[in-house]
Amino acid sequence: MRDRLHDLRLDALLVSHLPSIRWLSGFTGSSAFLIVEPGSATLITDFRYRTQASEEIWDGVSVAIAESDLFGEVARCLDEAESGPRVGFEDHSLTVRDRRALGECCGAVMWEPSGPLVDELRSSKDSEEIGSITQAVQLAEQALEALLGIVAEGVSERDLAAELVYRLRLAGSESNPFDPIVASGPRSALPHAKPGGRRLEEGDLLLIDFGATVEGYCSDMTRTFVLGSPAAWQREIHGVVSEAVRAGVAATEAGVPARDVDRAARDVIAEAGFGDRFGHGTGHGVGLEVHERPGVNSRSRETLHAGSVVTIEPAVYLPGRGGVRLEEMVVAREGGREVLTRFPLVLREL
Amino acid sequence: MRDRLHDLRLDALLVSHLPSIRWLSGFTGSSAFLIVEPGSATLITDFRYRTQASEEIWDGVSVAIAESDLFGEVARCLDEAESGPRVGFEDHSLTVRDRRALGECCGAVMWEPSGPLVDELRSSKDSEEIGSITQAVQLAEQALEALLGIVAEGVSERDLAAELVYRLRLAGSESNPFDPIVASGPRSALPHAKPGGRRLEEGDLLLIDFGATVEGYCSDMTRTFVLGSPAAWQREIHGVVSEAVRAGVAATEAGVPARDVDRAARDVIAEAGFGDRFGHGTGHGVGLEVHERPGVNSRSRETLHAGSVVTIEPAVYLPGRGGVRLEEMVVAREGGREVLTRFPLVLREL
Repeated sequence: MRDRLHDLRLDALLVSHLPSIRWLSGFTGSSAFLIVEPGSATLITDFRYRTQASEEIWDGVSVAIAESDLFGEVARCLDEAESGPRVGFEDHSLTVRDRRALGECCGAVMWEPSGPLVDELRSSKDSEEIGSITQAVQLAEQALEALLGIVAEGVSERDLAAELVYRLRLAGSESNPFDPIVASGPRSALPHAKPGGRRLEEGDLLLIDFGATVEGYCSDMTRTFVLGSPAAWQREIHGVVSEAVRAGVAATEAGVPARDVDRAARDVIAEAGFGDRFGHGTGHGVGLEVHERPGVNSRSRETLHAGSVVTIEPAVYLPGRGGVRLEEMVVAREGGREVLTRFPLVLREL
Repeated sequence: MRDRLHDLRLDALLVSHLPSIRWLSGFTGSSAFLIVEPGSATLITDFRYRTQASEEIWDGVSVAIAESDLFGEVARCLDEAESGPRVGFEDHSLTVRDRRALGECCGAVMWEPSGPLVDELRSSKDSEEIGSITQAVQLAEQALEALLGIVAEGVSERDLAAELVYRLRLAGSESNPFDPIVASGPRSALPHAKPGGRRLEEGDLLLIDFGATVEGYCSDMTRTFVLGSPAAWQREIHGVVSEAVRAGVAATEAGVPARDVDRAARDVIAEAGFGDRFGHGTGHGVGLEVHERPGVNSRSRETLHAGSVVTIEPAVYLPGRGGVRLEEMVVAREGGREVLTRFPLVLREL
């Protein structure tokens, strides 16, 4: 991190993106800036987090509690630095308004957009981080298996989502990285369906996309089931998507451009004639955020690193009929990969 | 809304803040811009939301699905407008990076920061919105009452939080506006505690801060209980905070500066000698966001409008011992107020 400051000729970096603040300091609150300087790091937060910050913050980070607003405290911290310091800011996180406020508060500072510098560092996970993610995957799989015991005709999507969230929390998930998607029948063709009052019917596809959180690290997985015996079209698209998942997973490896992973999965779907039924990216990085770098899509310019954790989640959506999405979590390794998701990919009849 | 465009001499407004997009168009997805022009409104989103957008969007709003990225589609929509249009953007929502991307995409546009224009309009709720909020309050109160049945020594904060989330969802809450705070014993002195493994003990204060969501509209409430008989200090601070709540509620009225409401509650706490034990604002607006305008704190420059829905949530935190926070939701009316929260404020012994 400090090497990067030096490379960029920055005297300091103002970190505003909360997951990056957590990654660098341990602080989990919702209101903070972190100033990283070559020899020090200072977390700036407000009164509400005084005790929490002192408990959470890692060695080597000092805490400053803002008296009025955080910007004033930023100015106080940077004023102690040399005059006219070059300070990087996270232009993908900071709003235009906050950027202006910083400019007004800190007259002597030369502000430089630093890009997603910390996000890039975060995209290679160490073994402890991967351990937390693996636990989050395992919790999610346990909760899903428990949930399937109560899936039956007449149960609503909303009730299934409630049960799923309950079982996730009892299993030890700290929070939902996102509201679970439970989509049945034709609604499974909506990539981002919200669980509704619709009740399950014989013959429905049932798409469940959800995750767990352990030590702040997320998991994210999707399976699509069928109530009763699958129709031929359901079996077909499930088979195509399974094949696409396998191709995407097989392409995942340190050093590979993320868009090549996307292409590997996408080609399978296109060759099966469903190219126009899969309109989103194949996946995304997962860590302290459930969507983070690297993006695994056709426009991605990122490369997978050793320790990058990504989802592979191709899909085929047939509007008005139903859709299948399957999502695995994979760690890119040198010369290979490790698949974290263990839940079988086969089309399970409920 | 369009009057405001005219007043500001804007040809269009680019809305980027998702709750404001929902408020203006009905769209609930997570990736969109909305362009509001004097005679039209266009929602720009991506493939994943094609079906959802067409189902959700209100009459008078058209939908454009971006082929590659949203910025290109913004440029296409604005290029059809007159040359060199003045277009407002939400500087409190748009990041510095996205602002730059817009500048690069839309060469002819003159971009003007418009401030929280839509947020201000949203801060006065109509009767339908207040109806949804009221339902969200009622769901939350039902879930809390059900939860209290299982509060006992030895139960962990985390399990209580899991039960609470479950009961909220079964009662019909669409999602958690935020992860519930369940903090017991000394941890109740942490304003933003995360539920942990701590198990309840006789004599604990138990602080529960949570909400429900109905039609996208949030509720937010806090109660602090005691396990067994309260100690004198617990009774004292609960009494002070109850008094502060009543003072804040009594000050809530259309036309009143929000900081006067803060002062009314804060003065009670200061007079009781706990001024330095209440370091956050008294409250905030609630609507499609659980924290929105107006801020009810000493630095607020906002005024309550008829239909403004705010929380009143003073507190006293004694580090290492425990804290009491009580939170009501109130609608400001002309010449008065309506208190939405019905759950008694009295210190309940569990």
